[in-house]
Amino acid sequence: MEHVTRRETTPVRIGAVAIGGTHPIAVQSMTTTPTEDVAATMAQVLRLAAAGCEIVRVAVPHPKAVRALPALVAECPMPLVADIHFRADCALGAIEAGAAKIRINPGNMEPDAFLRVLDAAGARGIAVRIGVNSGSVPMDLIEAFGGPTPDALVEAAARYVAVAERRGFTSIVLSLKSSDTLCNLRAYRRAADRFPYPLHIGVTEAGDADYGRIKSAAGLGGLLLDGIGDTIRISLVGDPVKEIEAAYDLLKATGRRILTPEIVACPTCARRGIDVEAIVAEVKAALKDLRAPLRIAICGCVVNGPGEAREADLGIAGGGGEGVLFRRGKTLMKVPESKLVETLVAEARKLAQE
Amino acid sequence: MEHVTRRETTPVRIGAVAIGGTHPIAVQSMTTTPTEDVAATMAQVLRLAAAGCEIVRVAVPHPKAVRALPALVAECPMPLVADIHFRADCALGAIEAGAAKIRINPGNMEPDAFLRVLDAAGARGIAVRIGVNSGSVPMDLIEAFGGPTPDALVEAAARYVAVAERRGFTSIVLSLKSSDTLCNLRAYRRAADRFPYPLHIGVTEAGDADYGRIKSAAGLGGLLLDGIGDTIRISLVGDPVKEIEAAYDLLKATGRRILTPEIVACPTCARRGIDVEAIVAEVKAALKDLRAPLRIAICGCVVNGPGEAREADLGIAGGGGEGVLFRRGKTLMKVPESKLVETLVAEARKLAQE
Repeated sequence: MEHVTRRETTPVRIGAVAIGGTHPIAVQSMTTTPTEDVAATMAQVLRLAAAGCEIVRVAVPHPKAVRALPALVAECPMPLVADIHFRADCALGAIEAGAAKIRINPGNMEPDAFLRVLDAAGARGIAVRIGVNSGSVPMDLIEAFGGPTPDALVEAAARYVAVAERRGFTSIVLSLKSSDTLCNLRAYRRAADRFPYPLHIGVTEAGDADYGRIKSAAGLGGLLLDGIGDTIRISLVGDPVKEIEAAYDLLKATGRRILTPEIVACPTCARRGIDVEAIVAEVKAALKDLRAPLRIAICGCVVNGPGEAREADLGIAGGGGEGVLFRRGKTLMKVPESKLVETLVAEARKLAQE
Repeated sequence: MEHVTRRETTPVRIGAVAIGGTHPIAVQSMTTTPTEDVAATMAQVLRLAAAGCEIVRVAVPHPKAVRALPALVAECPMPLVADIHFRADCALGAIEAGAAKIRINPGNMEPDAFLRVLDAAGARGIAVRIGVNSGSVPMDLIEAFGGPTPDALVEAAARYVAVAERRGFTSIVLSLKSSDTLCNLRAYRRAADRFPYPLHIGVTEAGDADYGRIKSAAGLGGLLLDGIGDTIRISLVGDPVKEIEAAYDLLKATGRRILTPEIVACPTCARRGIDVEAIVAEVKAALKDLRAPLRIAICGCVVNGPGEAREADLGIAGGGGEGVLFRRGKTLMKVPESKLVETLVAEARKLAQE
């Protein structure tokens, strides 16, 4: 089968996590608690860690937040990134406090301040994400390109990258987010062609959990399938744990990083011979804890069932109250519908052991 | 701003709906009821129509289903497509019964039978979807390409298209579905380069409603943003009405067809100055009935808020218990948080009127 060819980038280290190169696409999120409330923020950080978050970002909008950073850095089980806008003093404070990376938007910082931040990050050996957003592209580029177009975003990034490179700073991660999926896709594609730096991908201002998941998947799926993207954040309104789940679902759906079983199923048309919807729900629940990249296909009939089931690690093609169980292309056995779930689950656990 | 350049295709007529060319991407689904149960099937068809379904497909696996078709065709408020596998007699019966299109997979039909079906469809002036699935690619192509690869899918389609064209039949819609999003993307991209026919896009066997939505969006987003796809079906396990909602969300998220307001929002970090999650939910509920392609941005702070809000038709940038309301780039007014929802909703309805 064909595979994704990953875009080549120079890896960058964020604390204990490396991104870019051939490193797995790192999943990240951002806390929603007031950063200065260390207890509440740490509680959320730990929930994020339990959900699989690998890099966490906290907003650092004022000195109160800076003062909370040493305690957070000390307790945080993963690299902590400080998210800075406008205030170079907060960026410098965050670097001093031990942040593993800082995220700045040089578009809202004085040129001199940007240089001081780069120097400080360089001295501590930490990375800087240069995060361009369609909402904050410099006005001269907006005018030159007739709006916050993909090229305007890429030119804004190029401008800041050139400043950093001239300063000798290259521990750079780039993002070029838009809430317009077309602009987002094109900006990242062009940035991938132009820069050797790892890309942090995401769709900004995606929306609530329901719509935002679809919008992020729509905007990022084409990038991931073309090998673009080294770390990902799905931006959703609400509990950030949902961002982690959505990110792993998207990485699984694009085959870029599969940690838990993928359960595919036919859309239950009139041809189905078994109760696909119920079986999918039961298998999903029964394998919730399984950490193995298995592909499990549950197909209700003989039309695509056997073919699909054969392509999967484990598959069922149903019909007439029973199902045929396939394992990597080979027919294992016929099973009555009442035993399908337990047989499939047992085989999945056996396969995961091997 | 940049726009999607739609791939050029020769339009095909499906009853009263035209697909391809510059026609809107048509949203379709498939019933899950036994087709021979006319009452249950019509009830589902009407629910689908109410949700915005524009073309509906029913499985026709046996003569009992064929016999139900005249009654369904007579009552169906939209073009009805017969989904056929294996049985040319059912295909011929469905054409006779007045189906607006038939969907066949020539890979599971005798060559002679395929020709008879094409002739009958040609005589009635209806379209045929040639639907190739990764689960049913001819064995010689599987062997030649080392699996159901994108090229194997495209070659299978090319083989059937050549037969149809030699027969003088060109009212063709093509699909090349896989449950592997990479294979799906590449097969459709290559088919878009190679064939002039409208493409029916979808990811097959996507999964349950939750995961299937993400997987379909991930697999189809890159196609839609590149101008590929003329009619869409999101395959989900369970109630097909969810497929319609997911399809419209995906078309909206990719900007390809926007019928109702898009509500984008910031992901509520520690910087937010208003309760973004609650406001999004309230605005969404209050504008549920509004049929107008407005873009509404709800941003919690001054970082990306004003920029994002300016790009939207209507936008809020919040802070300190109040919000600034923007309308197409212009500041309208400052509003206290308690009045934000009603003011925004009123402005949205006013804008929709204009």
